[in-house]
Amino acid sequence: MQIAQPLQLAIEELSKLPSIGTKTAQRLALFLLKSDIDKVNSLTSAITNLKEKLRFCSICFNISEEDVCEVCLNHKRDRSIICVVEEASDVIAIEKTNEFSGLYHVLGGVLSPLSGVDPNSLKIKELLKRLESEEVKEVILALNPDTEGEATSLYLAKLIKPIGVQVTRIARGLPIGGNLEFADEATIGRAVINRINL
Amino acid sequence: MQIAQPLQLAIEELSKLPSIGTKTAQRLALFLLKSDIDKVNSLTSAITNLKEKLRFCSICFNISEEDVCEVCLNHKRDRSIICVVEEASDVIAIEKTNEFSGLYHVLGGVLSPLSGVDPNSLKIKELLKRLESEEVKEVILALNPDTEGEATSLYLAKLIKPIGVQVTRIARGLPIGGNLEFADEATIGRAVINRINL
Repeated sequence: MQIAQPLQLAIEELSKLPSIGTKTAQRLALFLLKSDIDKVNSLTSAITNLKEKLRFCSICFNISEEDVCEVCLNHKRDRSIICVVEEASDVIAIEKTNEFSGLYHVLGGVLSPLSGVDPNSLKIKELLKRLESEEVKEVILALNPDTEGEATSLYLAKLIKPIGVQVTRIARGLPIGGNLEFADEATIGRAVINRINL
Repeated sequence: MQIAQPLQLAIEELSKLPSIGTKTAQRLALFLLKSDIDKVNSLTSAITNLKEKLRFCSICFNISEEDVCEVCLNHKRDRSIICVVEEASDVIAIEKTNEFSGLYHVLGGVLSPLSGVDPNSLKIKELLKRLESEEVKEVILALNPDTEGEATSLYLAKLIKPIGVQVTRIARGLPIGGNLEFADEATIGRAVINRINL
């Protein structure tokens, strides 16, 4: 017996999604097949709407329903600080903390010569343009603390400092609720070096 | 900042899928948002086709493009043996082995009083009807080796034996490539009891 063509096709399409392998894709396809048609339709229309109704902000490249996103439009936010992040999901993560009231800039990735991501593939030119035209006093680099994120942070710092804007980076240290015993050496080392006065 | 409405909706819909939590749903939604419109459309149309083009076989309740599935229609298959499985995915798993050439019967679940699944919610009546009308000599119970699967197997055996049909169950034992040291006691115990002559 061969797997029915429409099922095979749905499994292939679902397994193209990140973190979904063939087995999970098969489970999802069979789940959808058993679901009510209404539920399946509300899923597909939610996905279609996502593409049709959302775009990227023309200033900060965050997700937006309009040409300019609500963060960039909000005049209550501190326009002297720009927080640079890798992806739009990082904006959501930082907004959830309620600790930051400045503006954002989504790079769209980090420098990775092996994957063919060079400075021109990222929104770096657009960031420098904003720093020149807007009244920005500080740029916070909030890239992931991995090799590529660190390399991109250093690259950006070299470009931004000559413009006369302060460049900072979010702190590295032990995560809240973490445990010294189970933390890796690099994290503990960094936490010791970056100790703060109480 | 609130998450844009279409994104929020897509995250909610995606997180209704099995084994997809909110965080994974968010990653999937952002991935789809960044993908080409063509790729997103081929995913949604594959899902829609799944519901429109497939149904369940009126005899064995396996997935089928027609009213009767190709296994039930295939006259080269041994019509004297019916293999009873929980879900359509189990049919795919057994077909992949190429070790079984009989027919199937998909129950649509297992007995689980706590989740409200009683004999009437499963395709048990339909199975008994097939056993009476067709020339079946053996029923192989291939339900999962967990508490509910075992209970359903015993329940089915009690119903089927009086009809005069042989009832068997797929073997329990050490999985191929498994390791005695890491196997659980119940599995090893069952493997010793069900030892076979060499």
